[in-house]
Amino acid sequence: MPTPQIDQAFLEDFRALSAFGATPAGGVDRQAATAADGAQRHWFAGWLAERGFSVRYDKIGNQFGLLDLVPGAPYVFVGSHLDSQPLGGRFDGAYGVLAGAHAAWRLAQRWQADGTEPKYNLAVVNWFNEEGCRFRPSLMGSGVLTGKFDLEATLAIADEAGTTVAAALAAIGTIDPEGEAPEPAAYAEIHIEQGPELEREGLAIGVVDATWAAKKFELLVRGEQSHTGSTPMEFRHDALLGAALVIAAVRDQADRHADVPLHACVSYLTLEPNSPVTTAREVRLHVDSRCADERVLEQAKADLFAAFAQIEERARVKIEQVAAHEWGNLAYQPEGVKLALDVVDGLGLPRRTIMTVAGHDSTNMKDLVPTIMLFIPSVDGISHNEREYTEDKDLLAGLRVLTEALARMAQGELDGAKPAGPGL
Amino acid sequence: MPTPQIDQAFLEDFRALSAFGATPAGGVDRQAATAADGAQRHWFAGWLAERGFSVRYDKIGNQFGLLDLVPGAPYVFVGSHLDSQPLGGRFDGAYGVLAGAHAAWRLAQRWQADGTEPKYNLAVVNWFNEEGCRFRPSLMGSGVLTGKFDLEATLAIADEAGTTVAAALAAIGTIDPEGEAPEPAAYAEIHIEQGPELEREGLAIGVVDATWAAKKFELLVRGEQSHTGSTPMEFRHDALLGAALVIAAVRDQADRHADVPLHACVSYLTLEPNSPVTTAREVRLHVDSRCADERVLEQAKADLFAAFAQIEERARVKIEQVAAHEWGNLAYQPEGVKLALDVVDGLGLPRRTIMTVAGHDSTNMKDLVPTIMLFIPSVDGISHNEREYTEDKDLLAGLRVLTEALARMAQGELDGAKPAGPGL
Repeated sequence: MPTPQIDQAFLEDFRALSAFGATPAGGVDRQAATAADGAQRHWFAGWLAERGFSVRYDKIGNQFGLLDLVPGAPYVFVGSHLDSQPLGGRFDGAYGVLAGAHAAWRLAQRWQADGTEPKYNLAVVNWFNEEGCRFRPSLMGSGVLTGKFDLEATLAIADEAGTTVAAALAAIGTIDPEGEAPEPAAYAEIHIEQGPELEREGLAIGVVDATWAAKKFELLVRGEQSHTGSTPMEFRHDALLGAALVIAAVRDQADRHADVPLHACVSYLTLEPNSPVTTAREVRLHVDSRCADERVLEQAKADLFAAFAQIEERARVKIEQVAAHEWGNLAYQPEGVKLALDVVDGLGLPRRTIMTVAGHDSTNMKDLVPTIMLFIPSVDGISHNEREYTEDKDLLAGLRVLTEALARMAQGELDGAKPAGPGL
Repeated sequence: MPTPQIDQAFLEDFRALSAFGATPAGGVDRQAATAADGAQRHWFAGWLAERGFSVRYDKIGNQFGLLDLVPGAPYVFVGSHLDSQPLGGRFDGAYGVLAGAHAAWRLAQRWQADGTEPKYNLAVVNWFNEEGCRFRPSLMGSGVLTGKFDLEATLAIADEAGTTVAAALAAIGTIDPEGEAPEPAAYAEIHIEQGPELEREGLAIGVVDATWAAKKFELLVRGEQSHTGSTPMEFRHDALLGAALVIAAVRDQADRHADVPLHACVSYLTLEPNSPVTTAREVRLHVDSRCADERVLEQAKADLFAAFAQIEERARVKIEQVAAHEWGNLAYQPEGVKLALDVVDGLGLPRRTIMTVAGHDSTNMKDLVPTIMLFIPSVDGISHNEREYTEDKDLLAGLRVLTEALARMAQGELDGAKPAGPGL
C-alpha cells in the first residue's frame, strides 16, 4: 500500500525538522534556547504561518500556532517540546510537536471541506525547555503556564555560563515580554514511550492513565581541600569519596526494590575545585528516583538518607539536601483515557493503558484542564540517546490517533472532566 | 629579641606577594598563567631588577633572576613556583621562590662586603606551572627544562576553555619564544612540608632524602546515554555509577594498606553529558596514588584493576586507562643531604631527614644536577587549602638554612655528586 500523500508530507517535515542540531550519530543536540533551538523555532513558525496559523510567544517563550475558527472560544492545546538533551534523540518531544501541528492542519482542511464547526479553537504548542538540562528544572514552560512556577523567578534562572532564561530567549528572538498564552480548554500530547513495553508487547499505542511518582533532589556533600599526595588519609575530608558512596547507595536502593521496580540514579554532578592534586571540598549531585508505588519511593528515600550517617563517617564529610522536586503517582482524567482508548479501538490498532515514568508537559497540564497523553513505541526502549528510534509506521499510526482524538476534544467531548491534580 | 631588619624585609615582601590572587579566607587563587599569576610575575620581576638581578624568561615561561658574578660560569639555581591551586594556600611554592630570592640577595650583599668570589653564578627561578591544575600535567616548567617533556607538545596543551599554554603565557607577557634558560650547576629548593610530621615532632627543618613513589593515571569509563527515569535499570550502562565504584575501590586500596601507608584518591572527574535526566555516557577520572614502598604501590594498582571486572559488570560499562604519569621511590644525592644536614646542625636547629610525598620541581632537577630539598613545618599538615599556615619563625629559620646551603653550593661543594635519577 503506497503511503498517502499527507503521511509523506509528515515524514518529509520530520526529516527537515531533524536536521536542526543534527549530530553525526543520527541524533540531535538542541538544548533550550541555544542557536539550534532558535533555528528550529523560526523554521516551525514559518511552517505554521504558511498554513494559516497565527504564531505567538508568551512571557516564558512557549511558542503557539493558533487556528482561530470560533471567535472568542478557548483552545484545545496540542503539542510537546522541540528542545533536546545534549546528544539526544530526534523523536523525543519533536515528534509530538510536529504530530500536533499536522493533526491540527488535517482537521482544519477536513472541517473546511465538510463544513464542520468545532466548539473550540486549536492551538499547537511547543513548550519551552521541557528537558531541563541547560536550565533547571525541567517542564519549565508548562510549569509557568500552569502557575506551578513563578514567572519572574523562572526568567532569572541562569545556566552554568551565567546566561539567564530571559536573556537566552531574547537572544534567539522567541519570547514576547507582553505575550499572553491562549486560554486552554483541554490538552493532547503524543510522545515516544522511552521504555520497552509497547515494543515488547507488539502494541502500536499506549494510553497513559497515570504517572509514576518521582522524587528528584539535589544533595550537597561538604568536605575540605587537601593535597591528594601528602595529606595522611585520616586527615582528609573527601567530598568526592562521599559523593561516590552516595551514588552507589542510590543504586543499592534501586537493586533492593528491583521487583517493584524502582528506578534511581545520579547523572548530574559538579565538584570543586576539580583539580588532579587537591581533594574536592564540595560536590553537588542530583538524584532522580521514580516508582509507581509512592510508599516504596518514600521508604527508599528514607533508607538512603539513613545510610548517609555511615557515609559521612567514612569520608568525613557532611551531606545535606539543598533542593527537591517531587510528584506523586497521579491519575490522568478517566474520561480522557476512555476517549483515547475508544479512538484507538475505532482505528483497529493494538493498544494498552500505560503509566508514564518520565515527566511530560501533560503532567502539568492535566492539573489544569482535561488532558490526554498517548505513547508510541521506542525501539529497545532507548531514549536520551542518539540511537533513539521509532519506525515510520508507528509515527504515522500515532498521528492518526492524535488527529481523531483532537477532533473529538475540539467538539467538547471532554467538557466536565475534572482536572486531575492537586494544587489548582 | 627583635627581628633583624633583613628578616623583617622578608616578611614584608611575603605579605606583599600574598596579596596577589588573595581570597577572603586567607588563601590565594592564582593558577598558572592567569591574570593573578601574571601580576605576581611582573611584581617579582620588578623586585629582582631593583636589586640588580637580570630577569629573563625561557621558551616555557620559566622566570629567572640572574646574579652574574663569575663571567661564563654556570648557575646554582634556587627557587620554587609562584602558581597555586584554586583556593590554595599562600605558602605552597611562593615561600620557596621568595626565600630563594632573599637568600641570593643576602649572599650578593655578603660577598660584596667581604670580597668572597664564588665559583658559580646564582639564578633565582620561578618555575612555570608546578601545580598542574589549569594545565595538566604538573611540574611543567622543570619538566621541559630537564628534557622530560617535549617543548612544542607542552606549549600546545590546552585548558578546559581551549586556551593553550603558549597563548596563556603570551597573554600575561611572561614568555620569551627565543629565550634560553641559564646553564644549571646545582639546584636548591625549600618548601612547606604539606604533611604533619615536622610539627608533630617539634622540628624546624626536614632534609629530603627521597621521594615516595607515585602512580597517577587517568581512567575512561564508557557507558551509554539513557533516560534516568524511564529506562529499566537492567538496560542501563551508567558511566557515573561505574566511576563511583572506582572511586570507592581506590579508597579501599588505601584502607587495605593503611599501615604502610598508602595514599590514594580521586579528585578530578568530568562527565558527559552531565544532565539531570540523562545517564552519563562517559566519565574521565584521575587517580592519584602514592607510597614509600614501590612494591606495595604496584600491588595496589594491580588489585584495583583486578576489581574493575566486577565494576564493569555491575554498572555495565567499560573501564580503560588512557594516560599515566609515574615516578619511583628515588633518592636525592647523599652528598646534598649531608651538606644540608651539616648546615642545619651548624645553625643549631632541630631536624630530621624526611621523604617527600608531593612532587616538587626538585624531583625533576635532581635527575639533572646535584640538588638539595628542604622542608619547613606545615601547621596541622594542611595544604592545598586556604588554611595552609606556617609560623614566621619557621619561615625565617628555613631562609637562614637555605642561605648558608646556597653559599656552600656556590663554592662548588656539590661538584662531582652524580645526578640521582634515571633517564638523563
